[in-house]
Amino acid sequence: MEGTVRTEIIVDLHERSYGIFVGENLLLDFASYFEKVGKDRKVFIVCDEAVASTHLPVLQESLNKKSVVYHHLTLPSGERTKDIQYLEKIWNSLCEYKYTRKDLLVAMGGGVIGDLAGFAAATYLRGIEFIQVPTTLLAMVDSSVGGKTGMNNSYGKNLIGSFWQPRLVIADLLTLKTLAKEEVVSALAEVIKYGVIYDSSFFDWLEKNIKGLVAGDLKLLASAVKRSCEIKADVVARDEREGGLRRILNFGHTIGHAVENAAGYGVIRHGEAIAVGMVEESKLGLKEDSAWSDSEHDRLVRLIEAAGLPTRVPAELQLSNEQLLEAARADKKNTDTRIVCMVPSKMGEVLPVSYDAARIEAVFQQMAT
Amino acid sequence: MEGTVRTEIIVDLHERSYGIFVGENLLLDFASYFEKVGKDRKVFIVCDEAVASTHLPVLQESLNKKSVVYHHLTLPSGERTKDIQYLEKIWNSLCEYKYTRKDLLVAMGGGVIGDLAGFAAATYLRGIEFIQVPTTLLAMVDSSVGGKTGMNNSYGKNLIGSFWQPRLVIADLLTLKTLAKEEVVSALAEVIKYGVIYDSSFFDWLEKNIKGLVAGDLKLLASAVKRSCEIKADVVARDEREGGLRRILNFGHTIGHAVENAAGYGVIRHGEAIAVGMVEESKLGLKEDSAWSDSEHDRLVRLIEAAGLPTRVPAELQLSNEQLLEAARADKKNTDTRIVCMVPSKMGEVLPVSYDAARIEAVFQQMAT
Repeated sequence: MEGTVRTEIIVDLHERSYGIFVGENLLLDFASYFEKVGKDRKVFIVCDEAVASTHLPVLQESLNKKSVVYHHLTLPSGERTKDIQYLEKIWNSLCEYKYTRKDLLVAMGGGVIGDLAGFAAATYLRGIEFIQVPTTLLAMVDSSVGGKTGMNNSYGKNLIGSFWQPRLVIADLLTLKTLAKEEVVSALAEVIKYGVIYDSSFFDWLEKNIKGLVAGDLKLLASAVKRSCEIKADVVARDEREGGLRRILNFGHTIGHAVENAAGYGVIRHGEAIAVGMVEESKLGLKEDSAWSDSEHDRLVRLIEAAGLPTRVPAELQLSNEQLLEAARADKKNTDTRIVCMVPSKMGEVLPVSYDAARIEAVFQQMAT
Repeated sequence: MEGTVRTEIIVDLHERSYGIFVGENLLLDFASYFEKVGKDRKVFIVCDEAVASTHLPVLQESLNKKSVVYHHLTLPSGERTKDIQYLEKIWNSLCEYKYTRKDLLVAMGGGVIGDLAGFAAATYLRGIEFIQVPTTLLAMVDSSVGGKTGMNNSYGKNLIGSFWQPRLVIADLLTLKTLAKEEVVSALAEVIKYGVIYDSSFFDWLEKNIKGLVAGDLKLLASAVKRSCEIKADVVARDEREGGLRRILNFGHTIGHAVENAAGYGVIRHGEAIAVGMVEESKLGLKEDSAWSDSEHDRLVRLIEAAGLPTRVPAELQLSNEQLLEAARADKKNTDTRIVCMVPSKMGEVLPVSYDAARIEAVFQQMAT
């Protein structure tokens, strides 16, 4: 497509390196991207009901034009789909249509589909290649980059999964046009996070442009997606399997995940929970000798508010501190007695701090509704 | 333990390198091996019913002596355990006891437990470390080395799984004392395979010692296990994810797996099916210009017979060529229309040859019972 702006960001992981393409109208041209990674391969597309009626036909048309053989599977929308029964459904369809190791899976949708279908790709025939086609802002800036795949079980979120890198990520900004405003707002929590953990000038930029981003300005969203992907690509390239640096991406998530789990799936949006988590984990960073000052904390709170995100647990959730602590203990990054938070040391930098469970319990106590 | 011979074979996979310890009485000393890979880690032991009553107590005693915290889960014996319901059972137990990423899983048993528990380790919290403790000859020489983990579904064997390397492999030869003779015999098919694909002098040695091996002579078995592990370690180190060289390990397996699948799980032993597969794939190598001559083929047939293994499909299985071809098509290494076999080019070397499905169908036609 002439005239459209496309950026390619490379995630440098040696033999597992891949490109993230960000631009408008990329889906119309999907088959060309697909051909970059090989010909004569069948394509298995996984999407949810919402995407099946909006973006799937565009992808199919592109594949039809180049006579690529494909099948597709539509799963229910929503977090409950990140479940073993739907994982089996994907596996079984791949078996049914006799997909081989040279074929390819496409995960088209938000984080739920990306995580689940990515996990299916990671585990079918001990791993086949897959392409992430994120159709939500959250998936574009977060889940579709970095190779984390997985699903939930009755014990918690993402407790089962693999690290499995996509072969390509194709983020078509036009898909954001159909996105509900609350979904854009929720995703901005992750975008704000990138500023706090890695890039103070990006944080400045967000302060200036937050209104336009919330309003869904595609040019601004394009810039936000590009910078977010660049930061995530940089972090992931330096620490693929979450041994060190990558943990900075968890800023807001230790407490945020606890809120999300304690509330129960789908009761509070991921970004809303992360916004609350960032505020609390930011408070942990407020120490006399730290460059993370009250005024920096206030900037973060104001930006979160300007994005239309909550800064505390909504009262109607009625979460007790026991519920919150129990959820935090189930988090796979925590050990039995210690809970690790990423805490801001200055704007653009966070550091891991390991807390006694009692310290975090005190946080939950004042958060409980 | 003084006086016992222990060999360590290193599987060189860079940051995923690990050691295979082969010797007698290693389980008595399990906790010391465990401490090599870190302290203050909980240990989750998965075994089957047979191993729970024989070797598990030895391991537990060793862990008790060093006050290592552990839990264990006993699963039913047999191939049917390589199923999603038991995978979920392992995941749920790990969640229940709140195992974290710093903890460790031990897969103690034959290939079924090694593959399934290894897959659980690969996918719990996106991967935790695990130790393979093979207690059968087949697991020692084959499945516990190389990082292939997985399970079966209604479409076939090992269609779901991951590549996930163990942190250590501990092969205690004393566990072979309790092994049924048919299990030893079945495993010898894989041992013979190593000679054909990689080491003609090992094949010579097997010809000389086959009687003693079948009789269960531990000294001879120790030598066979060591050389088999060395060969497999060498092959896997040069090709971790089965892109190239590693395919030589599939000699006998294209046709052997088809026989195994067509017969139905557990109807014919793995090694028996592989023995039949090796004979047929060996025949494919008989060409005028090849160093794989009739006399080499005959040596292979005689060694297989001397081991007490079948050289053709047992008549009572009543397999049709349609059943065999269907099973071959479901094999994850085959594409839609081509079937790849590893074919001997001389003693100690095999090469991949891609056949038209019709060619293999002809093989099945004369094999059908």
